[in-house]
Amino acid sequence: MQLPSLLLENAVNEFAKLPGIGKKTALRMVLHLLKQDTEIVTHFSETIAKMRKEVKFCRRCHNISDGDFCAICANSARNQQMICVVENLRDVIAIESTQQFNGTYHILGGIISPLDGIGPDQLNISSLIHRIETESISELIFALSPNIQGDTTIYYIQKKLQNTPCTVTTIARGIAFGGELEYADEMTLARSLANRLPVQQYVKS
Amino acid sequence: MQLPSLLLENAVNEFAKLPGIGKKTALRMVLHLLKQDTEIVTHFSETIAKMRKEVKFCRRCHNISDGDFCAICANSARNQQMICVVENLRDVIAIESTQQFNGTYHILGGIISPLDGIGPDQLNISSLIHRIETESISELIFALSPNIQGDTTIYYIQKKLQNTPCTVTTIARGIAFGGELEYADEMTLARSLANRLPVQQYVKS
Ligand SMILES: [Zn+2]
Ligand SMILES: [Zn+2]
Repeated sequence: MQLPSLLLENAVNEFAKLPGIGKKTALRMVLHLLKQDTEIVTHFSETIAKMRKEVKFCRRCHNISDGDFCAICANSARNQQMICVVENLRDVIAIESTQQFNGTYHILGGIISPLDGIGPDQLNISSLIHRIETESISELIFALSPNIQGDTTIYYIQKKLQNTPCTVTTIARGIAFGGELEYADEMTLARSLANRLPVQQYVKS
Repeated sequence: MQLPSLLLENAVNEFAKLPGIGKKTALRMVLHLLKQDTEIVTHFSETIAKMRKEVKFCRRCHNISDGDFCAICANSARNQQMICVVENLRDVIAIESTQQFNGTYHILGGIISPLDGIGPDQLNISSLIHRIETESISELIFALSPNIQGDTTIYYIQKKLQNTPCTVTTIARGIAFGGELEYADEMTLARSLANRLPVQQYVKS
């Protein structure tokens, strides 16, 4: 693509660095901004830069936050004795979108994955243990990836909690609603069988 | 979508104003930028703002430009006596991408469209006439939208050029390569017939 201005070309290249954005889409965005008033584009660019510069991480749960504590930790209407352990911010947003969870979160920042060089020390595990020991947590819910790394992480944390009275659960795994049984992998199918529910209970849930 | 930070929400809303970008895609972009170093995001935002603030328009052809004259007008290797008249920058980029045109452009900024309140005075027509009268232009090629408004614009400009010796052409219109004859609109089909070429010439081109 030949562009008649280096300023334009640089802007297109910046947009094209974003995930899933090719040169053509980047150009469409830049041409759109070119048609807007300078103030509008300045506001766009300042909002992005400000977000990155000023966003904080919640001291308690590591969620992103505008202040020292995130809106979820600061909300007394939520059950502050319940922690849902997730890998990242996207998981928080996904669970919040269901509007079915009223507790707090703890973002680990990943899961234990020796092949990727991620051990317990690279994750927010010690702060989780500290919370459980000091905040009289009643229930810990693991919502991690359903794979070996996720299970290793649960196992590791679980072991650290031997003498803690809180209930520890993990979100249900099984064949996704609408999924086809024959295409499910062996482990999912095996777990689905092992965790089978009485039909009465299934119908209620 | 519930977001735990107003800073993040504002950034997502800004991206979601871009054409073809929904909230989900905007969030993916923002989360990507959140993972980058502050300097990288600052550079992203400054490049966009700089583009909008500093981009100029070529004094001669109204193309976007980094200086008073665009790279095409300033390039002596291009045929400066040939003008391709287009509606907008996207058309310039499209024609440049073919690498088949070695002349200059003139961006009208649209076509005459009384229903949209666009008359000749809203377009860069007087500067085009001025160029033709003063720059010893040898050929004027219209590459406008193949519709009534495009034809009106060509007719209007053509009338202003009664005493000018330059050749005036328009890009060929017809059934697009790979298009199906039965689905072509009447006017395209009629023009295609009227502008029929000897097969010898067609085969050569
Ligand atoms: Zn928090
Ligand atoms: Zn120019």
